[in-house]
Amino acid sequence: MNNNFWPENAREFADLLGIEHPIIQAPMAGGPSTPELAAAVSNAGALGSLGVGYLAPEQLDAQIRKVRVLTDKPFSVNLFVPESRSRREVSVKVLKKLEKFSRDVNAGQIEIPEPPKYTFEDQLAVVIDNNVSVFSFTFGIPENSCMKMLQDSGTVVIGTATCVEEGVLLQEAACDAIVAQGSEAGGHRGSFASSSRIPMIGGIALIPQLASNTKIPLIASGGIMDGRGIAASLALGASAVQIGTAFLSCSEADLPKPWLDSLLSSKDTSTVLTNTFSGKYARGINNRFIEEMSPLEEEIPPYPLQNSITRQIRNAAKEKGDSNYMSLWAGQGSSLSRKSTAKEMVNALVSETFEVIKAVSSSL
Amino acid sequence: MNNNFWPENAREFADLLGIEHPIIQAPMAGGPSTPELAAAVSNAGALGSLGVGYLAPEQLDAQIRKVRVLTDKPFSVNLFVPESRSRREVSVKVLKKLEKFSRDVNAGQIEIPEPPKYTFEDQLAVVIDNNVSVFSFTFGIPENSCMKMLQDSGTVVIGTATCVEEGVLLQEAACDAIVAQGSEAGGHRGSFASSSRIPMIGGIALIPQLASNTKIPLIASGGIMDGRGIAASLALGASAVQIGTAFLSCSEADLPKPWLDSLLSSKDTSTVLTNTFSGKYARGINNRFIEEMSPLEEEIPPYPLQNSITRQIRNAAKEKGDSNYMSLWAGQGSSLSRKSTAKEMVNALVSETFEVIKAVSSSL
Repeated sequence: MNNNFWPENAREFADLLGIEHPIIQAPMAGGPSTPELAAAVSNAGALGSLGVGYLAPEQLDAQIRKVRVLTDKPFSVNLFVPESRSRREVSVKVLKKLEKFSRDVNAGQIEIPEPPKYTFEDQLAVVIDNNVSVFSFTFGIPENSCMKMLQDSGTVVIGTATCVEEGVLLQEAACDAIVAQGSEAGGHRGSFASSSRIPMIGGIALIPQLASNTKIPLIASGGIMDGRGIAASLALGASAVQIGTAFLSCSEADLPKPWLDSLLSSKDTSTVLTNTFSGKYARGINNRFIEEMSPLEEEIPPYPLQNSITRQIRNAAKEKGDSNYMSLWAGQGSSLSRKSTAKEMVNALVSETFEVIKAVSSSL
Repeated sequence: MNNNFWPENAREFADLLGIEHPIIQAPMAGGPSTPELAAAVSNAGALGSLGVGYLAPEQLDAQIRKVRVLTDKPFSVNLFVPESRSRREVSVKVLKKLEKFSRDVNAGQIEIPEPPKYTFEDQLAVVIDNNVSVFSFTFGIPENSCMKMLQDSGTVVIGTATCVEEGVLLQEAACDAIVAQGSEAGGHRGSFASSSRIPMIGGIALIPQLASNTKIPLIASGGIMDGRGIAASLALGASAVQIGTAFLSCSEADLPKPWLDSLLSSKDTSTVLTNTFSGKYARGINNRFIEEMSPLEEEIPPYPLQNSITRQIRNAAKEKGDSNYMSLWAGQGSSLSRKSTAKEMVNALVSETFEVIKAVSSSL
């Protein structure tokens, strides 16, 4: 299917990214956004992404090189902007609960690992050295100097906003585009401006308010599972969409079976927002880990500490195939998941969008 | 502007309701959905609504008659489906907090009023006697016998769902259409099926999942403030929209000034979900009442008890023009509020929708 049907703002933005269709596969750090998935999505005419915030510079470099072997199309790399140094203490209650979980999945003694030796700047240097076409970030805004280095090297830079205030800050920081992350989104909230409450604004409300208060292209994200969500996003004022959950069930994501099964059997009410896995709020399918840990929500250590001390439990659960103790990230549209290849998914998303726009405009 | 541009499903549904444009003014019980607003919206070619769940049968009858004086067009009446008898006790902590608020606004001694003498069936009899064209309800599903009486009298019956499970139940109960209430919506959640967690699913995720699991027309609601939200709703699979917040700032709603001012100066992050005013969860602009009462969230008495014991405080605050102790219901799109008449609002919504559909489909 050709790309002539996309409205002008969407085609212009796709041109800026060097892609055919204004669809971005969301970076999903910690597993599913494999080099294979990113390359397959890019080869299908959309923009594949590597979510590599958890990786050391040399691992990150290897992943980028792997994508390059599989495609000569543009793709995106996503990193986490670090916050100020966070505390290293874990409360006795949290530790006791994690020790119980650890026994359940034979994960061994809970350890509080040292923080990584590399910095965000080290990771970013790899992105710049590799001359990646698109760089996106979450959890904050990189320093001016970083933004300048990226843009001087011709990289398109995309920030993530969960409210208008964050969108305005990203625009002021000279981002080229903004991901508007609605409350429907799976995985981590990209929020960084509000200190008290995490903004949980649904896309139907968030996207138009961002569009009315910013001037750069918006990328709608959160709960978009098919052409209906894509056409709706364009109507709301977005120039593109970023889709995570719908790509989780693609073969190239190589999702652990318990996660894939949970996704395919999920309902619209299956997901919850939780800080129990990582210390930052994220949306995933509810399970025993969340249920039992949530009463301690207020005393969960901050990201990245909680993330690093729950990792061995999550990994052991994955090994055992036990969904009770894994982070099953998913958005609120998860019940619309379908198994396919990434290429089939991109093709379906594009042709469905065309059909929906045709139907909605059929009486014009 | 004529109505020829609406897609076929939307025009068919508007025909069923006997209106020109598939736009429903949300019933907003407790003040803003005045007979004047309902009539003005209906006269402008959309569907006006009376939210009269709090009214005694004779008051309800008077309101319906008042609308009839002002318009000969169809309009809708909305009632609350009662729940099983709820408890009548108020905890000492809640009472102490309310007594403090009451002193702040000179509302007098907190009283625990007797439940009303009339029943839902008494209210419904007035709706049926008046041969109202459209009846909508929230918080549950009326008995089979009620549904049958309504439909035998030719009334279109519309239920409210906040998740797929509720939508399926409404369809099984032979409703003619379903309001899909996204998490963005202002005012009370219509949830009734889930006992543990109130579903908070954003419209972008909720509407397609409801559309894929039900066969009757869907009415999108929550965060829809202009033509962008309406066009998006159609793309997501809705046949119509229900809009509350955007009609609050219409002159006919005669909104108390503190509420109107809060609305017009609100941001995308201004609203919160709270059970502190009524005992049921609802979305409104955050204020002192909510902030100070929220720590007691778990022990707030259920609806309608909490609603009746906070009423004198809310009324006294309204008299004083003090927004700190009023329920300032609003949806997540509230920052897009604009002052106008209801007629101007309907006309704007219609012409904006046309423009958005035209823009999105301009390259087809």
